Amino acid sequence: FLSSAAPQTPQGTFVKGRVPNEVSVADAITASKLACARQVNRMKTYLGDLSKVKKIVFINGKVQSQSDFTNHTVVVDGCSTFLVNVFGEKVGKHARTSGGLTSLPFNVTIEVEIIVQRK
Amino acid sequence: FLSSAAPQTPQGTFVKGRVPNEVSVADAITASKLACARQVNRMKTYLGDLSKVKKIVFINGKVQSQSDFTNHTVVVDGCSTFLVNVFGEKVGKHARTSGGLTSLPFNVTIEVEIIVQRK
Amino acid sequence: FLSSAAPQTPQGTFVKGRVPNEVSVADAITASKLACARQVNRMKTYLGDLSKVKKIVFINGKVQSQSDFTNHTVVVDGCSTFLVNVFGEKVGKHARTSGGLTSLPFNVTIEVEIIVQRK
Repeated sequence: FLSSAAPQTPQGTFVKGRVPNEVSVADAITASKLACARQVNRMKTYLGDLSKVKKIVFINGKVQSQSDFTNHTVVVDGCSTFLVNVFGEKVGKHARTSGGLTSLPFNVTIEVEIIVQRK
Repeated sequence: FLSSAAPQTPQGTFVKGRVPNEVSVADAITASKLACARQVNRMKTYLGDLSKVKKIVFINGKVQSQSDFTNHTVVVDGCSTFLVNVFGEKVGKHARTSGGLTSLPFNVTIEVEIIVQRK
Repeated sequence: FLSSAAPQTPQGTFVKGRVPNEVSVADAITASKLACARQVNRMKTYLGDLSKVKKIVFINGKVQSQSDFTNHTVVVDGCSTFLVNVFGEKVGKHARTSGGLTSLPFNVTIEVEIIVQRK
């Protein structure tokens, strides 16, 4: 199935702003991890159990960025590393794309959209 | 199968321009509905009959927007609501992502791309 | 399976810059072809043999562009034509989306992401 884009919550609030003038790359990496953690929680809620995840197939990381930003991959690595940590190399490794968007809903810093294959 | 992005037609012409300085949010919602209607027409043409749609799986709504625009979800709701109206809650409800693009082909206001599961 | 986004290499270097002020449309079309050629190489490496490709299902062409650029489809045609040349009409024809991003990783001009169905 396909899981939708996830804005991120630390303790209920969204990480907002553009990279890197409003949000540092380090903070954006954290935001990327948080967005990803929310997606994993969704999988848990939907499937009941994370062992039902057969494969993380694909990730799209959309970063709200200034037009001269070029370091998207480092930001989205925050999410990718998190997934491999949770699911291991075999299940957690995935195809990926990323890019800079001129604006995102609610001014969030990043959105991560994930395609998951269930058992 | 996967259905491609759809620019929209009211009576043959495209709704063009950037949200919200050139196209109001209200007009963008209408444009979103029109783009979606075109996609439903494509499904009809391709499948012969809309009853062959098993599930609207995923939607990506790309809005040509100013860099400080944050209200993408309201715009793309125009399409989502339309799909639920046509197919009902069970078939028509979907995972979704949306974002602001700095430019779109032919200066169109929105593109909607839909992934449909057939019976 | 889903194949990830591909920045392009002529002879190891990336084609970089924004369309059309830094990179002409003609050069962007070439870049689009090169990105696509890399994706076909990936398929070959992964599947062993291109005859195992059942269908090119979907393409997403992301062009790093100025905000008033409207000619994305011509650029991404470089990739689409290439795929039809390699795989023929039946296998190589695909659903597609394209759009202008405000920035891309490493300042590359275009990224092409492809969904392939294997036999």
